[in-house]
Amino acid sequence: MADALFKKIIAGEIPCHKIYEDEHVLAFLDIQPLSRGHTLVIPKESAETLDQLSEESAAAVGRALPRICRAVMKATGTHAYNILQNNGKGAHQAVFHVHFHIIPKPHASEGLGISWPAQSLESKEGAALATQIREQLV
Amino acid sequence: MADALFKKIIAGEIPCHKIYEDEHVLAFLDIQPLSRGHTLVIPKESAETLDQLSEESAAAVGRALPRICRAVMKATGTHAYNILQNNGKGAHQAVFHVHFHIIPKPHASEGLGISWPAQSLESKEGAALATQIREQLV
Repeated sequence: MADALFKKIIAGEIPCHKIYEDEHVLAFLDIQPLSRGHTLVIPKESAETLDQLSEESAAAVGRALPRICRAVMKATGTHAYNILQNNGKGAHQAVFHVHFHIIPKPHASEGLGISWPAQSLESKEGAALATQIREQLV
Repeated sequence: MADALFKKIIAGEIPCHKIYEDEHVLAFLDIQPLSRGHTLVIPKESAETLDQLSEESAAAVGRALPRICRAVMKATGTHAYNILQNNGKGAHQAVFHVHFHIIPKPHASEGLGISWPAQSLESKEGAALATQIREQLV
């Protein structure tokens, strides 16, 4: 199982550079960082992708993020940063246990590289699509 | 103010293709999508970056995300997707009100483009850095 690594880190069977821990959440340094201070924030609950995570765990991760972000930015002296959470192999997910990356962006050449191939959303198409999505909100 | 756009959307003064709304959170379609179904999930609280957001609002956004992700993926028939939240101009932030992107990744050529210039973290350096970050966790 590709999520075994994080399960073992949560269980304390594999060491990590721990940043934060509470009942639902663990945060530790990524050992293959995109920049200094690159941190992973994970729920202790096992869920492969965010859509499969309980609302309780998702809220706990959300609640912990601002405080951890402040500490990472203060300790690294960085101001800009990206939060990234990938779901599915096609979207660059490599470990199949939900994880939020906090990636400091000290310079253009360091941290997360983003390309932004924006399209435009026609008003009628947008209205129809929003209706379709709302209908799935059960 | 570059966050005026989202304030006006929250106030209902500028229309949006609304997906979801609760006491603390609003979600609507990005009108410059990276892919079909590209959705923005924002706190109603005004905060420029995630580190400035209250824990209550951050928890509410976290709690709403799995449900909204499920609806977007079902409606668009997509399985892979990225959650991205940018902080600071250097990290690609354009509207200075916290927003989480839900970006479906239907194909390699559509959705968020990511480059991943990973480094490695030496064990001793990691231990020292984790200590520095924990000391800032107040």
